[in-house]
Amino acid sequence: MNKLNLKETHKELVDFLRKNIYKTGLKRAILGLSGGIDSALVAYLLRDALGEENVFAIMMPYKSSNPQSLAHAKLVVEDLKINAKIIEITDIIDAYFKNEKDVSMLRKGNKMARERMSILFDNSAKEKALVIGTSNKTERFLGYSTQFGDSACAINPIGDLYKTDVWNLSEYLNIPKEIIQKKPSADLWEGQTDEEELGLTYKEADEILYRMLEEKKSIEEIEKDGFNSAIINKIYDKMLKSEYKRVMPLIAKIKR
Amino acid sequence: MNKLNLKETHKELVDFLRKNIYKTGLKRAILGLSGGIDSALVAYLLRDALGEENVFAIMMPYKSSNPQSLAHAKLVVEDLKINAKIIEITDIIDAYFKNEKDVSMLRKGNKMARERMSILFDNSAKEKALVIGTSNKTERFLGYSTQFGDSACAINPIGDLYKTDVWNLSEYLNIPKEIIQKKPSADLWEGQTDEEELGLTYKEADEILYRMLEEKKSIEEIEKDGFNSAIINKIYDKMLKSEYKRVMPLIAKIKR
Repeated sequence: MNKLNLKETHKELVDFLRKNIYKTGLKRAILGLSGGIDSALVAYLLRDALGEENVFAIMMPYKSSNPQSLAHAKLVVEDLKINAKIIEITDIIDAYFKNEKDVSMLRKGNKMARERMSILFDNSAKEKALVIGTSNKTERFLGYSTQFGDSACAINPIGDLYKTDVWNLSEYLNIPKEIIQKKPSADLWEGQTDEEELGLTYKEADEILYRMLEEKKSIEEIEKDGFNSAIINKIYDKMLKSEYKRVMPLIAKIKR
Repeated sequence: MNKLNLKETHKELVDFLRKNIYKTGLKRAILGLSGGIDSALVAYLLRDALGEENVFAIMMPYKSSNPQSLAHAKLVVEDLKINAKIIEITDIIDAYFKNEKDVSMLRKGNKMARERMSILFDNSAKEKALVIGTSNKTERFLGYSTQFGDSACAINPIGDLYKTDVWNLSEYLNIPKEIIQKKPSADLWEGQTDEEELGLTYKEADEILYRMLEEKKSIEEIEKDGFNSAIINKIYDKMLKSEYKRVMPLIAKIKR
């Protein structure tokens, strides 16, 4: 995949944020800061678009969240001097599941993602600040997100950036190295990494998705570029199966 | 507005539900049953599409909900013999707001709507049943819903039906009269009615929206049909201001 012109991209995204946030009549933005690189990058872009006094970060750890995640989120807050608060979601989530046995990690993770969305939107109304999304293009097209959860927002500046682009732009913006260099994790259980759970590296997923989405290459053409057929098919399958997450709910059209 | 062919519409919607639910690989459906007419109608359609044993209704009252709402929801469950359970949301909502003073009804209502969505999707995973939406066209175009709350679903059979159509189809399907005849209410506080809160009757909203959306008439043309100019403009304004609720979040498009 081609490397983005990072200076240009930074300018485009900052302009996009400023223009589209102001268009709603609001001057402030709010985002969930997980400690990971995607939300960190969005926080830097928002600071550049609106000024640090107009950015609100909410950190929403669960008891099993890696303490390093919260530490990294705080690093971003301190570096940017943005407004921030911590809202623990442990009690809410545990109260919900208290009478259930053997709840799968998938159900628990989805409930957490939707609770965080709901908290963000509530604080959006309280602070008169627009909810800004932090899902990148790779997760979006692999379906690695919770519908009406972490993918829910008003506007998203990085939804067309592959994970590789997120890394490159984050380096360009001097985001703290420990955030850029750690293994990406949805942080749903100890030791979880995205790549292990997906059974893919972001590097290969990006090279393949880029050929599918930007270069419009067929599976056969991508194989000719030297990629493993099983991996290409796996990615294609994830993309198809997650399409419903990228569109509005299907509504029955009435004949009148 | 023209009256629908109710027999045809019923058949179309039942076919739509069956086809699109089966397409996902699931055989069952789940919905939130509020006691109001919209979710009641969807429950009847689902029973006709899938059979009563494949429909799951969840009733999610809050302490201030009108007891009549739950009674009406139970009436539907008994009439249809569908699976049902009650999940009280009072403790969850009150725990969330316990340290806040002067929370507006809007914030509280939105938090409740999103909690119900989150519970429905969690039960969807648990029961392997698809979440079916219950927002009608009138609410959708007036923006009278919570984004990522009651409007969130996998598929919605009544999103193209005006409230007037919902009333007519419900009568045709012999839904209990007390549910059809009561004043519509989001049931967020005692005595609330949708029409008072909107400052519009559904009857006039539907006649005006129908002319805008189905007949593509301009504001001037609708005035010539004899409707009040202030009301037409109010509806037009609500439609414009709620557009973001009917589309996916805006994503910045990158130049590559």
